[in-house]
Amino acid sequence: MFLKVHELNLTTGRPVAILNEQSAKELNVHVNERVSIKKVNFKKSVVAIVDISTNLTDHGVVIASKEILEILKVKKGEIVEVSAAQKPLSVNYIIKKLNGKELNYTEIFAIISDIVENKLSEAEIAYFVSAVYLRKMSINETIDLTRAIIQAGKILNFDHKKIIADKHCIGGLAGNRTTPIVTSIIAAAIEKYKLKAVMPKTSSRAISSAAGTADVMETITNVEFSTGQIKEILERANACLVWGGAIGLAPADDKIIQVERLLSLDPESQLIASILAKKISVGSTHILIDIPFGASSKIINEIDAKKLREKFEHVAKAFKLNLKVVLTKGDEPIGNGIGPLLELRDVMAVLNREKNAPLDLENKSLFLATELFSLISNISKEKSRQVCVSLLESKAAYRAFQKIIEAQGTNLKTIDKKLELAKFKTTIVSTHNGKIEEISSKKFSSLGRMAGAPESKKAGIYLHRHLKDYVRKNDPLFDIYSENKEKLNYTAEIAKRINPIKIKPDKN
Amino acid sequence: MFLKVHELNLTTGRPVAILNEQSAKELNVHVNERVSIKKVNFKKSVVAIVDISTNLTDHGVVIASKEILEILKVKKGEIVEVSAAQKPLSVNYIIKKLNGKELNYTEIFAIISDIVENKLSEAEIAYFVSAVYLRKMSINETIDLTRAIIQAGKILNFDHKKIIADKHCIGGLAGNRTTPIVTSIIAAAIEKYKLKAVMPKTSSRAISSAAGTADVMETITNVEFSTGQIKEILERANACLVWGGAIGLAPADDKIIQVERLLSLDPESQLIASILAKKISVGSTHILIDIPFGASSKIINEIDAKKLREKFEHVAKAFKLNLKVVLTKGDEPIGNGIGPLLELRDVMAVLNREKNAPLDLENKSLFLATELFSLISNISKEKSRQVCVSLLESKAAYRAFQKIIEAQGTNLKTIDKKLELAKFKTTIVSTHNGKIEEISSKKFSSLGRMAGAPESKKAGIYLHRHLKDYVRKNDPLFDIYSENKEKLNYTAEIAKRINPIKIKPDKN
Repeated sequence: MFLKVHELNLTTGRPVAILNEQSAKELNVHVNERVSIKKVNFKKSVVAIVDISTNLTDHGVVIASKEILEILKVKKGEIVEVSAAQKPLSVNYIIKKLNGKELNYTEIFAIISDIVENKLSEAEIAYFVSAVYLRKMSINETIDLTRAIIQAGKILNFDHKKIIADKHCIGGLAGNRTTPIVTSIIAAAIEKYKLKAVMPKTSSRAISSAAGTADVMETITNVEFSTGQIKEILERANACLVWGGAIGLAPADDKIIQVERLLSLDPESQLIASILAKKISVGSTHILIDIPFGASSKIINEIDAKKLREKFEHVAKAFKLNLKVVLTKGDEPIGNGIGPLLELRDVMAVLNREKNAPLDLENKSLFLATELFSLISNISKEKSRQVCVSLLESKAAYRAFQKIIEAQGTNLKTIDKKLELAKFKTTIVSTHNGKIEEISSKKFSSLGRMAGAPESKKAGIYLHRHLKDYVRKNDPLFDIYSENKEKLNYTAEIAKRINPIKIKPDKN
Repeated sequence: MFLKVHELNLTTGRPVAILNEQSAKELNVHVNERVSIKKVNFKKSVVAIVDISTNLTDHGVVIASKEILEILKVKKGEIVEVSAAQKPLSVNYIIKKLNGKELNYTEIFAIISDIVENKLSEAEIAYFVSAVYLRKMSINETIDLTRAIIQAGKILNFDHKKIIADKHCIGGLAGNRTTPIVTSIIAAAIEKYKLKAVMPKTSSRAISSAAGTADVMETITNVEFSTGQIKEILERANACLVWGGAIGLAPADDKIIQVERLLSLDPESQLIASILAKKISVGSTHILIDIPFGASSKIINEIDAKKLREKFEHVAKAFKLNLKVVLTKGDEPIGNGIGPLLELRDVMAVLNREKNAPLDLENKSLFLATELFSLISNISKEKSRQVCVSLLESKAAYRAFQKIIEAQGTNLKTIDKKLELAKFKTTIVSTHNGKIEEISSKKFSSLGRMAGAPESKKAGIYLHRHLKDYVRKNDPLFDIYSENKEKLNYTAEIAKRINPIKIKPDKN
């Protein structure tokens, strides 16, 4: 059926087509079912969800959401061909996996490419996530999933002759913002030692935490760039700190994460495939993976962390990557800030050698930078460490950081204004004397989100204390920051109830 | 935030609120997130998905989909209070179940009532369905699920002093339209023996088949009634044959089924809870459950059928129901017609004692009627059978059927017109001599739907043959009926390709 496009400037998060009753009847589609829409004489099509409006009295018209207009590059008044979309074949493969059977590459690719093309609804993707979560994937399936995510996305080639360095933390630890520091140290090292290397660091936004590296960087600079722009940034600064989502590296993965986020699920194979696919898509050759384990981490015990390391190494081998996995301590949040701005302030304090800089964040960043520098330079760990320490202490790393954000469009003179704290703040104090025996990363992530993070950049938590500290009654434990008074009060109320810091009382 | 309601007569299948950018920013909600909408000075609220339109330049306005208007009973121009909806607590219980832990009643009820109130998205419901499908539910959880579905819906009380009889088939067999016949026999029995009983039969529309009982009855009578109207029908006819969806008995269940349908999943506990909750909601006291098993059924082997029977009996006990489960043969479709009108014609042929009436449908209906009559009357099976046979043969059951449809608003004089066959018909013949060794219920359901059923009432399949029949080359196997010539041809083409009747060729 040929219909003329109307628009309502409607953004719906997924392609939505509003039909009138007559058209829907003729197409034999109902509300919430799917139609395929195609520009006349063009090949590209998009699958859209159907809404029906009885106000659309004009026959021969379809209201297309912005997502449709963007994908098809059509404008108001143009003619599109609309037809009922068949149920995608990949639904059968999702059922197969739910029933515990192993999928082959063709089947996995069908699911992934249908996700990219919007042929699968969020509910169908949720079934796929459940299947992978509960049935698990074999190493072969995980390799195939990685390959499928790469295949269905964009592949960038920055420079074949160069080493492309990358790091990634599997997440789960609040405040653990080592990436900007490590990237700055490596960028400074590349500069100083004239290495044939770049570090095109693409990061994600928060999934279930109060901030992702992209959210943190966005408080001070732009993070959305085209691949052409990223190449320019790399030429100027040897590194970048951008949002991976903007370059459409692994669009399937982004949609899967959106659905995983609903329940904060993160199945292991999906995690490995998601991370490595993005690294391979940007041509990474040398990759450092950080797996924190401990009471406050995604991975609680060392055995599971080691198993995960083994799987990473297995999959990396299939793609011929120089991959190093390190296991790090994850008993408590890293740094003091939790939330985009508060984490950025920690990062800048370390780079700018400020007195109040959190030492745990500095130490962990130095450890990771040493590992990555040693991996790309083939220099001994000891020597690598000296290099990294000196680059940090001489503020060469800080200058590298400034160079990166300048290349990403920041006017360095305007930084101070961007670092201003949130409007509202309240402090939670200790109710008794004693020793801190638990600081829950998960609870602090939730509290940070309640306060408004990551959407509200300045919202979050500032920790005054660390594990094993001794505190007295009424000592400040942490601050809550928010741009919204109601959210602040609500978060404070919940904070008192869920008790994110456990203190073992003195006996006397 | 207070906003004025605009409308676009937009039906979206779930509540959708279109905000302008400014309002969304102030509420700190993004596309696809949820807001809670409440009529000023009223308690009832509804959770809606957010779309954003930059065309909505009027500040202080929200476009509400029809679903919102209906739930809140608001009209264009009225003021509503819109606020950001918190992520529902029940999400945590879904995660708990996905992780294999048993849920208690409070947790299950939270999930179910959040589904009813639209607080959970389709993707979140899909996670719940996956969890129940893969982790299974214990008997206690199944009982709690049943209770929660009842509690979150409407409860009808027809008459406390009366026996309330009901029957249900777990489905999967094409053409298996025993309900109108059984109901008519029981209504006739209640009349003849002046039993203190009624049979308020509520049925569903087709989910994945070519017709549900509600679709079949709708070809000849009205099926959508309020509970008050149903009471009047019962007073006049001792029974009714209506659509259960119209009285909102188990709204949670309807939404869960919508999500299950995407992957044609039907987790056992959900199936049991769904069926029994609807029965208990209408106050049923004596219930007959039919579990067909065999090559053509949802349940393939007898062992699984018996396990399911046991679970039904367990759950029924907790609700003190007089429940009888029968296992019946499900190797092939029942009756000749598949599709609303064609099944109704079979039903009427049996009731009106016509020569061409399908014997298998008659026999199965008599068997079920006997079981149900014996259950409500405490009369022996043998005697019960005599009663049912005589009510059918004397056409007392036919008169009871006429009484039911008259009470539901049918003018008996107009029936013949409604029974006219579809405009187009084509016959599929055998390609060789041989014995029929398979008739696929699933394939015939698909073909019926391709021909236009259940939306197009007259579309469907008419079977000329049964399992183990001997056929010669060019003998008619089945007819396809459609109101649309193209659909007819397409269905015929597919029918030849998928071969729904397998014939073992003669050796000579």
